[in-house]
Amino acid sequence: MRAFAKPLAKLIEELTKMPGIGPKTGQRLAYYILQTSRENASKLAEAILEVKDKIHTCSTCNNFTDKDPCGICSDLSRDAATLAVVAEPRDVAAMERSGEFKGIYHVLQGLIAPMEGIGPEDLKIRELLERINTGIVKEVIIATNPNVEGEATAIYLSRLLKPMGVKVSRIASGIPFGGDLDYADEITINRAIEGRKEL
Amino acid sequence: MRAFAKPLAKLIEELTKMPGIGPKTGQRLAYYILQTSRENASKLAEAILEVKDKIHTCSTCNNFTDKDPCGICSDLSRDAATLAVVAEPRDVAAMERSGEFKGIYHVLQGLIAPMEGIGPEDLKIRELLERINTGIVKEVIIATNPNVEGEATAIYLSRLLKPMGVKVSRIASGIPFGGDLDYADEITINRAIEGRKEL
Repeated sequence: MRAFAKPLAKLIEELTKMPGIGPKTGQRLAYYILQTSRENASKLAEAILEVKDKIHTCSTCNNFTDKDPCGICSDLSRDAATLAVVAEPRDVAAMERSGEFKGIYHVLQGLIAPMEGIGPEDLKIRELLERINTGIVKEVIIATNPNVEGEATAIYLSRLLKPMGVKVSRIASGIPFGGDLDYADEITINRAIEGRKEL
Repeated sequence: MRAFAKPLAKLIEELTKMPGIGPKTGQRLAYYILQTSRENASKLAEAILEVKDKIHTCSTCNNFTDKDPCGICSDLSRDAATLAVVAEPRDVAAMERSGEFKGIYHVLQGLIAPMEGIGPEDLKIRELLERINTGIVKEVIIATNPNVEGEATAIYLSRLLKPMGVKVSRIASGIPFGGDLDYADEITINRAIEGRKEL
């Protein structure tokens, strides 16, 4: 495509390596960068490099952090007896946004997915068991997504964790708040019925 | 939102300054940058800065270019007698992708939009008239988008250009190829009927 000058074509190429950024969006972002101030472009470039330089994973919970242990693991006001197991750092971010959960986290860095060749040994499960072994954690809330991999991982973990004497729970699955029965799929409706609570 | 370490929050902030990038997408892109190789992240940061350093507007046609005049203006194999007037550099890119047009371009850097306070004097119209005055251009194809501003600009330009002795034409507007009458809006259908051609 000769329509773009070389540096512009290269920027579009780099942008479209990102997930969900197709050629159209890549082009739109490249034009934005071209037309924004030099200062704004520098800030973006610096933020990209800074994240690579300063962010690493917390040696305790495996969440992304710029210090070790991370802000959550080192926060004494949090309830260290309640540990939520999640697949990815973005799930920690999602739970923190809700503001409801006051416990600590363990990021597995993935889910068991035999089809993709990801087994338990590829996840941070050994590290989770070590944390449970210290005896501080009383309840493990398995907060993996309610899909095939998330469920399989939850079942696998609960079999490992229950014999260790901790309470193991699973986040509820059902109709989302503000959602509509009419638009929910059958599995979600079945989950909502199975998970019903007495009023 | 305490869920993100500071450098990560800063990167998300910079990413969400871009058009069409909301908090969710910004977060997804930031996590991609975190998880990609250092080399990939550097390439992206460099491409951003390089575009700012090397790309400027062509002094002839106002398209983005890394040399002056641009690759199209300096290409002697192109038909310098046929000039397409477009609003933005991305429109040049769109026309070049189609591969049909072999003429040259003039980028107005916008459209007449009284509601936004953009008048003819804010666009590269004086420069267009100077190019026409050299006598090389025989036909001007006004290829602004078929919306209110694009049409207003097309009418304004055609009044200026016709007395200068050049042929002035307007790109066709109608049902897109592969489109469906049933899904087309009334104005598009009217345009398609008005622009009908004898077979």
